[in-house]
Amino acid sequence: MELSRVNELPYEDFINIFANVVEKCPIVAAAVCSSRPFGSVDALEAAIGDFIDALPESGKEGILRCHPDLAGRDLQAGTLTQESLKEQGNVGLDVLTSDEASSMARLNEDYKKRFGFPFVICARMNDKPNIFREMHARMANQHEVERMRGIEEVKKICHLRLQDLVHADA
Amino acid sequence: MELSRVNELPYEDFINIFANVVEKCPIVAAAVCSSRPFGSVDALEAAIGDFIDALPESGKEGILRCHPDLAGRDLQAGTLTQESLKEQGNVGLDVLTSDEASSMARLNEDYKKRFGFPFVICARMNDKPNIFREMHARMANQHEVERMRGIEEVKKICHLRLQDLVHADA
Repeated sequence: MELSRVNELPYEDFINIFANVVEKCPIVAAAVCSSRPFGSVDALEAAIGDFIDALPESGKEGILRCHPDLAGRDLQAGTLTQESLKEQGNVGLDVLTSDEASSMARLNEDYKKRFGFPFVICARMNDKPNIFREMHARMANQHEVERMRGIEEVKKICHLRLQDLVHADA
Repeated sequence: MELSRVNELPYEDFINIFANVVEKCPIVAAAVCSSRPFGSVDALEAAIGDFIDALPESGKEGILRCHPDLAGRDLQAGTLTQESLKEQGNVGLDVLTSDEASSMARLNEDYKKRFGFPFVICARMNDKPNIFREMHARMANQHEVERMRGIEEVKKICHLRLQDLVHADA
């Protein structure tokens, strides 16, 4: 959709279209829609980033907790959002070997036990070996550092989802 | 569900169960779940209220914008959340006369045009005539006053939805 059209949408349509640019957090689109018109897609993305940054720390962790595990129960149960399904599928998380699957399941559990939120990474900017490496490496981070790292990944995911939905006027 | 069980749930289950105590805002449940264990249902409700109060003003308006119109297009299209459908149905908003329906549609549009978010009221604490009266009366409020009024209603809705989901241990 062209940006000029995005700027003209009734807020309900704006929220419906951008509901999942931050996974399962339509409040983000709902919060920034009154800042329209946006002069560029970057400006829309920046408004979303600013809103996330202005949340209390519990809200940032809340955003992380709205994300599914990688190759987790939502993937297995078919309850992933359309966006996450595509992203996890693109990097092969839907066809793990049984060794990879049990390793991933253990890493997910260890990570969640340590931090209280799931491991979030922009799958489309990584490949499978890199995702495993990052899961191991980030496990050593301090809680606050890792909350920030997770939110950085949320913003990368948001960036790519926005690119899929809106472009500058021709 | 008993509170002691709520306090023990994996965070994913906690979020799933309380995802809609604030309409379409699972981030709220996701933010407060790390404050468990809660000593009472009131304490859970207070944590939710505190989280909402700590949001930037744009986030509070975002919460309001995640709410459907009364007797609006979600009701007509069958896309209301289960909770909203029940609440709007209980007060007869699903069986308006044609005069009432057109009056409601006009009030919804006028309200949204004035404030940029929808009219939110706890339907279960009101009857139909009262809802119409409130729509007229609140239209005269200043923007900031009305944002606060809307959030007060969000908290009343949340209170009743929580009562439906969780109770003190026997």
